[in-house]
Amino acid sequence: MCQLLGMNCNTPTDIMFSFTGFATRAEEHKDGFGVAFFEGRGVRCFVDAASARASPVASMIASYPIRSENVIAHIRKATQGRVALENCHPFVRELWGRYWVFAHNGDLKNFCPSLHAAFRPVGDTDSERAFCWLMQEMNKAHASVPSVAELTVTLAELVPRVAAHGSFNFMLSNGVALWAHCSTRLHSVVRRHPFTTAHLQDEDLSVDFAQHTAPSDRVAIVVTEPLTTDEPWHAFAPGELKVFEGGEPVGLRGGLGASTDGSAPML
Amino acid sequence: MCQLLGMNCNTPTDIMFSFTGFATRAEEHKDGFGVAFFEGRGVRCFVDAASARASPVASMIASYPIRSENVIAHIRKATQGRVALENCHPFVRELWGRYWVFAHNGDLKNFCPSLHAAFRPVGDTDSERAFCWLMQEMNKAHASVPSVAELTVTLAELVPRVAAHGSFNFMLSNGVALWAHCSTRLHSVVRRHPFTTAHLQDEDLSVDFAQHTAPSDRVAIVVTEPLTTDEPWHAFAPGELKVFEGGEPVGLRGGLGASTDGSAPML
Repeated sequence: MCQLLGMNCNTPTDIMFSFTGFATRAEEHKDGFGVAFFEGRGVRCFVDAASARASPVASMIASYPIRSENVIAHIRKATQGRVALENCHPFVRELWGRYWVFAHNGDLKNFCPSLHAAFRPVGDTDSERAFCWLMQEMNKAHASVPSVAELTVTLAELVPRVAAHGSFNFMLSNGVALWAHCSTRLHSVVRRHPFTTAHLQDEDLSVDFAQHTAPSDRVAIVVTEPLTTDEPWHAFAPGELKVFEGGEPVGLRGGLGASTDGSAPML
Repeated sequence: MCQLLGMNCNTPTDIMFSFTGFATRAEEHKDGFGVAFFEGRGVRCFVDAASARASPVASMIASYPIRSENVIAHIRKATQGRVALENCHPFVRELWGRYWVFAHNGDLKNFCPSLHAAFRPVGDTDSERAFCWLMQEMNKAHASVPSVAELTVTLAELVPRVAAHGSFNFMLSNGVALWAHCSTRLHSVVRRHPFTTAHLQDEDLSVDFAQHTAPSDRVAIVVTEPLTTDEPWHAFAPGELKVFEGGEPVGLRGGLGASTDGSAPML
């Protein structure tokens, strides 16, 4: 099994504190790692088939404050697909003139969908297959870039068809919003004013967020297991799909079919 | 104008020496840079909207020996498209279950092709538009992944249609071969046994390749302006398209229509 980390913010924020705790877990998830940072419409995706504990790429990320509103990170323990760069998450594809980034934790059995369109896996993982299928079906469902709310409705229809094949904890982002789906394990927290001090679960390291933030800042963190010991982590329910925008969960009044906001087109 | 650097080898080779000289030129090409390294079917693409002289990402690349058989690097001086991450080369897209990497030096006037298929630009550059069009037309021309020779024939038909709009020096790779086209300026050299010492043009740095290679190694370097003062650089002719595989130019007996090798499907 792998581990996932996502961040969605209302202002470009660096993920160094959270990534430091997360990378510690690479001791037992040593078959590669990756982090994708959106900067506007652009994305940088760093991947390495080495462990995040040993990789110079991980050291660079842990010491270089890349500020981003949407980040997805992944540390890999291979279940399907050999240890190779092409099997490292996150995966990136372009659709409707936007980059889409995806990472998965779980194991899908006998998921061999028909991929007849423009998205085909390069590596051998069930995860990349699932991503390609989602992209293909999203492309079929919308002629051009939909709103966050519209796409959430589409995903809510598509995701159970994949999740029926096994465990499908995943994160997806287009640089505007972060979608997170839980099959088995996923937790989230929103950091907002008044900011407090948080202590990492995996390392003896604390940070006083008040020293590094403005009162208007808002940051949502989504992760497989809580990163800190003293924050109000919320556990996702199995089957729960959440979407984060502007650093908080988007309210879904009346269920997924009728979003209260996000009706404007995606930037 | 920007500058391009490409490498194609018959064994995974690090590009630290050549990249060091190339990055020196970023003083006047400071609007971003990028380097893509293929490792098997996987690719890592590092991009930064900062200058390669100042970026921690460039420092990491210059000191971390990533071994690759196909590399494309680019330093940018913005002509079309603002300074932003999404406008940094190289660009990456997936087609036929393979990643394709592209970087361009030049300026295309009034190149606004109809992009009706699966490849759309994310940023604002003429370069990414040209790449998307090439991918679209390659996809139309071949139902599945063609041989290097077949794709070279297709590119020889497509490229003049873009080059008619201006200057179109570019490099393209799928991790198997490196295609390089010259409108105005491009040079190449093949490093092979017996290896000698080479001295960088841009820095007071020499390397004795014999110390770092096996006799069977072969490395082709393609670059806008020669990197070293003491190697037999070959200048491309305007309009020349060359393809490198296994560290040397692929012989095109009887012109581009009848390649002597490369008839096996791409790996």
